[in-house]
Amino acid sequence: MATDYRQVTIHSGFWQEKQALNRNVTTAAVYDRFAETGRMDAFKCDWKEGDPHKPHIFWDSDVAKWMEGAAYILAKEDRPDLRAKVEELIDRIEQNQGEDGYFNIYYTVVEPENRFTVRNNHELYCAGHLMEAACAYAEATGQDRFLRLMEKYADYIYRVFVEEKSAKFETPGHEEIELALYRLYRTTGKKKYLDLCAHFLERRGQPDNEEAQIFLAAHYAQSHAPIREQHEAFGHSVRAMYLYAGMTDLARETGDEALLCACRDLFADVTERKMYVTGGLGSTRIGEAFTVAYDLPNAGAYTETCASIGMILFARRLIEADPANAAKYADVIELEMYNGALSGLSLDGESFFYENPLEICRTERHRITATNDQERWPISRRVKVFGCSCCPPNLVRWLASMGQDFYAWDEERGEVYIHQFADSTFARDGVTVRVETDYPHSGVLHITANAPVRVRIPGWCRRFTADAAYMTENGYARFEAGEITLKLHMVPELIASSVRVIRNQGKAALRRGPMIYCAEGCDHEGDVHTLCFDRMAMTTARVTYDETLHNDVVTVDGWRLTDVEPGALYAPLRECYTPAKLRLIPYHAFANREKSDMLVYMPYR
Amino acid sequence: MATDYRQVTIHSGFWQEKQALNRNVTTAAVYDRFAETGRMDAFKCDWKEGDPHKPHIFWDSDVAKWMEGAAYILAKEDRPDLRAKVEELIDRIEQNQGEDGYFNIYYTVVEPENRFTVRNNHELYCAGHLMEAACAYAEATGQDRFLRLMEKYADYIYRVFVEEKSAKFETPGHEEIELALYRLYRTTGKKKYLDLCAHFLERRGQPDNEEAQIFLAAHYAQSHAPIREQHEAFGHSVRAMYLYAGMTDLARETGDEALLCACRDLFADVTERKMYVTGGLGSTRIGEAFTVAYDLPNAGAYTETCASIGMILFARRLIEADPANAAKYADVIELEMYNGALSGLSLDGESFFYENPLEICRTERHRITATNDQERWPISRRVKVFGCSCCPPNLVRWLASMGQDFYAWDEERGEVYIHQFADSTFARDGVTVRVETDYPHSGVLHITANAPVRVRIPGWCRRFTADAAYMTENGYARFEAGEITLKLHMVPELIASSVRVIRNQGKAALRRGPMIYCAEGCDHEGDVHTLCFDRMAMTTARVTYDETLHNDVVTVDGWRLTDVEPGALYAPLRECYTPAKLRLIPYHAFANREKSDMLVYMPYR
Repeated sequence: MATDYRQVTIHSGFWQEKQALNRNVTTAAVYDRFAETGRMDAFKCDWKEGDPHKPHIFWDSDVAKWMEGAAYILAKEDRPDLRAKVEELIDRIEQNQGEDGYFNIYYTVVEPENRFTVRNNHELYCAGHLMEAACAYAEATGQDRFLRLMEKYADYIYRVFVEEKSAKFETPGHEEIELALYRLYRTTGKKKYLDLCAHFLERRGQPDNEEAQIFLAAHYAQSHAPIREQHEAFGHSVRAMYLYAGMTDLARETGDEALLCACRDLFADVTERKMYVTGGLGSTRIGEAFTVAYDLPNAGAYTETCASIGMILFARRLIEADPANAAKYADVIELEMYNGALSGLSLDGESFFYENPLEICRTERHRITATNDQERWPISRRVKVFGCSCCPPNLVRWLASMGQDFYAWDEERGEVYIHQFADSTFARDGVTVRVETDYPHSGVLHITANAPVRVRIPGWCRRFTADAAYMTENGYARFEAGEITLKLHMVPELIASSVRVIRNQGKAALRRGPMIYCAEGCDHEGDVHTLCFDRMAMTTARVTYDETLHNDVVTVDGWRLTDVEPGALYAPLRECYTPAKLRLIPYHAFANREKSDMLVYMPYR
Repeated sequence: MATDYRQVTIHSGFWQEKQALNRNVTTAAVYDRFAETGRMDAFKCDWKEGDPHKPHIFWDSDVAKWMEGAAYILAKEDRPDLRAKVEELIDRIEQNQGEDGYFNIYYTVVEPENRFTVRNNHELYCAGHLMEAACAYAEATGQDRFLRLMEKYADYIYRVFVEEKSAKFETPGHEEIELALYRLYRTTGKKKYLDLCAHFLERRGQPDNEEAQIFLAAHYAQSHAPIREQHEAFGHSVRAMYLYAGMTDLARETGDEALLCACRDLFADVTERKMYVTGGLGSTRIGEAFTVAYDLPNAGAYTETCASIGMILFARRLIEADPANAAKYADVIELEMYNGALSGLSLDGESFFYENPLEICRTERHRITATNDQERWPISRRVKVFGCSCCPPNLVRWLASMGQDFYAWDEERGEVYIHQFADSTFARDGVTVRVETDYPHSGVLHITANAPVRVRIPGWCRRFTADAAYMTENGYARFEAGEITLKLHMVPELIASSVRVIRNQGKAALRRGPMIYCAEGCDHEGDVHTLCFDRMAMTTARVTYDETLHNDVVTVDGWRLTDVEPGALYAPLRECYTPAKLRLIPYHAFANREKSDMLVYMPYR
């Protein structure tokens, strides 16, 4: 039950505003920052030693993701300036692509003699992103010049890795090309690209592949075992998500049950044991990686924006490969949309988080250390560009194409799935579904459909009502075609963690609908670390719209812990709480005002 | 009101057993490990490139501290074998000391051309420990050979640093020689050594001293400001304690009020803002250092054994320099004795902690990382020797000479202070005080004294009774000479932290008398991280003696948090506690059984 993002139009409300911000601000901001840092000129491939802006091994991919995002925007709206920018980049790629089809900036101008020698140097990752961009651009514009260039590149990669086996490694250190090759196969219909996709997936972690032998490094890049034997998530969380997405593509294409089982297990391992309440993935900066089950430190969370976007890519494919469990995959997509992924972008659309911590304690961050090898802490302010700037253009392409996650057409049943909610229209071959809603401001959905619809009842929703007959199945309420009003009851509630998450014991997070909330110092006289929830006071919660934050905020009665013996570092336990009004804002909106401490998990009493 | 450790005899009980263990096991164990690792042979100064056991810059100090400890043992008991070992080391020092008086193994055999060129290479630190050992040995045996060698060395150092100013640095990178020179002055009566002590102290952090200019490095070694302008503790915590001890020596000797004020402020900053409830010092492994006020992470605590012993050295001197506040200094000495310092030693006397964490979570410790630059976590098992093995011989010398902290003779008033409690006798020029007690098993003290006594009422004690008339003053109860029974009421109680210690919010530690307790996994079916105290159930606490741990343990009713929805990573908050019997053991005794998680701070409800 695939969906084309072009079949979905978001008319107003939360996501329409985010998409407009992306089109009008973020896309240009990312382009400008990339131009300033030399990434765009790098495509001229005329850099030489001594010049400024030495190309980095990631740069092709940074720009390719931006091109992909631009393509999605162009599919909906002709923007000559944007199109000209993309075309200029395609010109440069065409001019500098090798006769053999190879294209990589770094390995053309910096180390031309070392092509395909260092597994971890992102060559195939860059190639994959260029291929995705080419597919997107061809779909969006009907122009296949870029696509043909990338087919030529893919043909070359096939020759090097499958026929000649002349590269110094067998599989990419950073996965991405797998899902890109699958997409290239779907776009062009050429089975060779599916074969190459399968080749890279199947060679990964094989006992006769040396890449699988280096203990920590193999885990880091998910090369510790063949893909069907991977049931626990290890290593770099973005790499993991991209790999799992590619595995899911292949499992669906081939109907490979063992492979789908691995994908399901990996999804369960991540979402039931290694995922933050915000959807954030990656508990340690060391290797930007998953650690062990239930190890979810809040202040030290790495939780890269790209990992949350990667989870959307993975879950989106699982919906197609494993539709019986679509509701739980769509739940996680919603969690990432409103929290872990979206927090990567500032409210003004110009700045970005790479890491998305669940707690900011500036005192701890400013540890005075003896030497300069200061522990690196998650950043507390979004910035305009990173040296490794993978996240900003990932946000651009995700926001521009996110419509595909809202609806799906079930060909077999002739029904429309409504996975996500926005004031929007789904239109496809005479089938039209119109959803009118101010979601996530409220949970009220007015649906007009000329086909039966299955509406996801979100995992967060404990009660819903409808004015039309329905039956529930696998987490969806099925309605016949017609007009329907569905009310998802949306109340602020406290969310606890499994007791195994030891850093969250005695603490809770506030959730309202799909959004996780947080407390910022600037709303609480600078000090959030002595605040407590009152678990009996949730009925006092009031939801109001904050113009500055463009979001609903929650105020609720709570407490502030104060010292019984001021000045004493240690004293016999006597509790002293004073009433405090807590003001919680959506997590994704934190760090948009003055510098503050921030907490998602707060003690309760 | 100084005391000579030789005037105090501990007859039985807790500290008699620890001292016997030190004499009979630890002293030999440290010697053997040092011999095996080449430290003893290194004193032959015949190492050459290619030989095993390349001497390390710390080694002189490791062995010197052991020699100092051996001297204290020899003062009380003639042990020909022990004496022979010390004499052999003195022979080697004598044979290898330069004509000019210089003695340093590393700079004799590894880098002879680089004497006094690298401030941070511990030359003066090693010299200081050799001087302390020489003073101790002369006092203990009446033999002054070693002392004369070290006087010659001190004379050489005076020449290089004061007269010729020919060294490449002005003050030691690792403090220690300051307090050693003061001791050499007291032992020999030669004012030159006091002058050299004052020289090193006064030159530290002076604006015209380049050492004060390097921002982080200057703070690391307390060189950021002249000593009288230091009012906040910074940097490496062991270095800080040794410096502050030396400063206190000088302040008392000279009656320098500004310097004493700095010492008082530094003590307050440490004990009121930067000290763990166990007395542990140093919140980060980075620089083994203090961080900022109230930053006291439990699992990440560095809390080096030497820093706690260093605090005893500092507080011991403050009692003499600032007797009006003796009670608070003696309180901290007691805290370190029973907790932060003692935890450095295993119950069998053979193994040692360098770091003394307040929490062990083995899941977190075994983070799977992408590369080998795994974050270093505090060790969870004591070991027999370290590469940098400063802590084991520090324990040897501290335990052998600790009697000096129990009593003090107030010459002016003709009274005896009883600062610490053990079944013991203080005897001096016709003054005899006998304390009979099973402290810290109970708080009952039977005192027989032929002079008035001032008995410290510990800070932990909220109620006491006595069968003789007394008056209280400055934290001490003063009794006339005679027989006295004093009962310090000792009950288990929960200790909270200032709300500014954010990692301890909603948590408490159990204290009974001078001991901080902890919970180990092996007493709780492997899992301590879901246990909670019941703050209303302290009346159910029972104290029993554990033969294995040789300590009183506390059992008390508490709770275990269990999952409401087993398997769910996140779920709406509903609390589910099941009753659990908590078993708490003294903190210093943790990690003496099977590998376990451990907690000092535990949530309460």
